[in-house]
Amino acid sequence: MGGVKKVAVLGSTGSIGRQALDVIRAFPDELEVVALTGNKNLKLLERQIRQFKPKMVCPSVKPAVSYGGQFLSVEDIASHPEVDFVVVATVGKAGLSPTLAALRAGKTVALASKEVLVMAGEIIVREASLHKAEILPIDSEHSAIWQCLQGEDTKPRRLLLTASGGPFYRYSQAQLAEVTPDQALQHPVWQMGKKVTIDSATLMNKGLEVIEAHWLFSFPFDSIEILIHPQSIIHSMVEFTDGSLKAQLSWPDMRLPIQYALSYPRRWPNPELPRLNWNNISSLDFESVDYDKFPCLKLAVEAGKSGGTYSAVLCAADEVAVEFFLSHRTRFTDIARIVQETLDQHQDISRPSLEDILAADNWARECATRISLGRCQKPEGRSRRRIER
Amino acid sequence: MGGVKKVAVLGSTGSIGRQALDVIRAFPDELEVVALTGNKNLKLLERQIRQFKPKMVCPSVKPAVSYGGQFLSVEDIASHPEVDFVVVATVGKAGLSPTLAALRAGKTVALASKEVLVMAGEIIVREASLHKAEILPIDSEHSAIWQCLQGEDTKPRRLLLTASGGPFYRYSQAQLAEVTPDQALQHPVWQMGKKVTIDSATLMNKGLEVIEAHWLFSFPFDSIEILIHPQSIIHSMVEFTDGSLKAQLSWPDMRLPIQYALSYPRRWPNPELPRLNWNNISSLDFESVDYDKFPCLKLAVEAGKSGGTYSAVLCAADEVAVEFFLSHRTRFTDIARIVQETLDQHQDISRPSLEDILAADNWARECATRISLGRCQKPEGRSRRRIER
Repeated sequence: MGGVKKVAVLGSTGSIGRQALDVIRAFPDELEVVALTGNKNLKLLERQIRQFKPKMVCPSVKPAVSYGGQFLSVEDIASHPEVDFVVVATVGKAGLSPTLAALRAGKTVALASKEVLVMAGEIIVREASLHKAEILPIDSEHSAIWQCLQGEDTKPRRLLLTASGGPFYRYSQAQLAEVTPDQALQHPVWQMGKKVTIDSATLMNKGLEVIEAHWLFSFPFDSIEILIHPQSIIHSMVEFTDGSLKAQLSWPDMRLPIQYALSYPRRWPNPELPRLNWNNISSLDFESVDYDKFPCLKLAVEAGKSGGTYSAVLCAADEVAVEFFLSHRTRFTDIARIVQETLDQHQDISRPSLEDILAADNWARECATRISLGRCQKPEGRSRRRIER
Repeated sequence: MGGVKKVAVLGSTGSIGRQALDVIRAFPDELEVVALTGNKNLKLLERQIRQFKPKMVCPSVKPAVSYGGQFLSVEDIASHPEVDFVVVATVGKAGLSPTLAALRAGKTVALASKEVLVMAGEIIVREASLHKAEILPIDSEHSAIWQCLQGEDTKPRRLLLTASGGPFYRYSQAQLAEVTPDQALQHPVWQMGKKVTIDSATLMNKGLEVIEAHWLFSFPFDSIEILIHPQSIIHSMVEFTDGSLKAQLSWPDMRLPIQYALSYPRRWPNPELPRLNWNNISSLDFESVDYDKFPCLKLAVEAGKSGGTYSAVLCAADEVAVEFFLSHRTRFTDIARIVQETLDQHQDISRPSLEDILAADNWARECATRISLGRCQKPEGRSRRRIER
C-alpha cells in the first residue's frame, strides 16, 4: 500500500506502453513513472521523456531532448532499486532478459509481452518463485481469469479463454488463401500492433495465450479451452469444481487490464475508462472453435504441450512467417505451413536453459526464413503479387 | 474447518429444504443433519427423519414414526448448541423468529427465505452484526453476487440482478389480464413452490430480491439494477468502480447456491450437479426491464426505498393477493392492484421493532383481504370465473 508505486514502462512507445502511460497519468497520487525504454519511435519517446521526466531511460539511440536523468540498459532499469513495478510491453523476445532481471530483483512484473512466458515459461515461473516476485498479467484474457480467481481457495476445473475469432472466422479455406495484409490488419474489435493483429487473424495469438495461461496459472493444457465469442465482452471465464463459473466482462479496452494490474488488489474509478452499456447489448454469442480452419491454434497448443524449446521455435517461426506475409511475399495460409514445417524440423531440447532457448530461437528464424523463401519462389505466389499491384 | 458441519434445515419438506438435504447427503464427511423442521407435509418429514436420524425435530404434529430424538421449538433448534449452521428454507414470515434466534446464538445462517430480510432487514442485519453471526445467501441471484464479491476489497459501483422475465414477459396488458393460475405456475426455467412461481410471473420476486440485496450487501437501492436475461445462465453480475464486471454463471439448479453456502469458502466437486455445456449455448440474451408492464417490481423497489414497515406490508399484501389469484377469485393483474392499494392505505412506522413489523403484517393481511374480496365482487370477475369452470 503506502506511498506512490514507482513504475518502469519497458516498451513505452508501443500500443500497450502508451496505454500504460495513459493510465499512470490518471493516478498521479498512486503512480509515478521512474523509467521509460523505447526502440524505434524516438520522437514519441522524447515526448514521453518531456512529459513524465523519468529518472532513467533506455532509448535505442540517444534522444535529442536535453535530459538530466540516467541512461541505463533495460536490464539495469528493470532491476533498479528505485523501481517497484515493471510493465513489460516490449515486442517479441526483447522482454525476456529484462523480465528475468526484474524477477531476480524481486520486482512485481506486469507482463503484456506474450513471448516471455511462451518462450521461457518454465524458467520465468521458477525464477519468480525463487525470488518471491509476482507476475501479473496484462493481456485481457489472462487478466479476466486472474480477476475471476480472486478469493477462490479451490483449484478450478477449467479455464475458458474467449476468442473474438478475428476478421476471417466465417471465411472458407479458399477465401483464407486470398486474404491480403491490409484485410488482415483490420481487426473487428481490438486496435493493436501489426504482429499481434495478424496473430489474431490466424488465431496463433489465442494459441500463445493458452501457453501463457498454462504457465501463469500452472494449469494443465487439457483443462484450458477456447470459446469463440465475437463481441469480446466476456474476456474469459473460470469453471470451478462445483460447476459454477465466473466471467469477467467489460468494454474491450486494454487500459482496464493494465489499470487492474497497477491498482491490484484494489480497483480505482477512472472516468476515462468506458463502461458497458446494457441498453446496447442484446446478446453475447458463443460457438466452438474450428481447429481445422485455424491450424496455428492447434500448432501452438501442441508446441505448448510438447514443452522444451518447441514453443520458442513456434514464436520465432511465426514472427518470420508473419513478416513474410506482411511484406506480400507469402500467403496468409502459408503462415501455418511455415510454422508447421519449422516445428517438424526442430530437434527439441528438454528442460532448456535460457541459452538453449535463444539458440532454438535463432535456429528457428533461419529455418523459417529458408522455408518462407522457398514458398516465395512458387509461380502462383508471384503472379498473385503482380495482380495485386 | 475442522470436523463435520452440523446443520439444521428449517422447512426441510419444501422445495429448497429437500434440495438442501440432497446436497448434505452427497457430503457425509463434511455435513451432518442434526435437526429438521417441517410443516404440512408430515409424510415426507417422517421419511426424512428415518433417513437422516436428526437429533432434534420440530414437526407441526407429532410424527407416527418411532423417534428417539428431541422435540423442540423451531427457535430452540435454531439456537441449539449442537447446531453450527442453520438453513432457513421456511415459507413467508415463519423464518423471522428462528432466524433471529440463530443469529443471536452466533450461528451461521443460510437464508433461502426472502421474507426474513424483506420484512425485517434492518433488525436482522443489526442482530447479525451485534452477535458476529454470518448471513449467507441461498437465492441464486444473491449467491451469484456474493461469489462475484469474493476477494474484492473495493466497494462495487453497481449490482446487476438478472431476471428470466418469467412466462409472460412478451404478453400484452390485455393478455396479462387473462392469465390463469395454471399458466402462471409454468415457469420457463425454475421448478419452485407455488407462491414464488407466481411472484416470478409478476416480477414481485425480483423486487423482493432487490430489497434482499440491499440488506445483504448493504448496497443503496439506486445502484441495484435489473436486467432481463431469459436463459437464466448468468445469475447476476457486479460492476466494479473501474468498469470491470464479474458474472456468475451455471446451469439453473438451486442445489449449486445451496451447496456453495454449505461449502463456503471452499468449493466441492459434486457429480450430481449439472455442468454448463457450451456446445448448447449459442447466445445469452439481455434486455432492459419494463417496469410499466410489471408494476409489482416497481412497488417492491419503492417499498424497499421507503423503509419502515412498508416492505413487510408489501410481503403480506402480496401473499394474500397471490392466494386470491391461485384460488381463481381474482385476476393476475389484480395482484399488483391489491398490493398497491394496501400500501397506499398503510400508516408507516419508521425504525420499527419486531412487534411493529408483525403488527403491520397483520394489518396488511386484513386490509389486502378486504381489498381482494372487493375485487371478487365485481361482475366481470364473477363471469370470468364461471367461464373458466
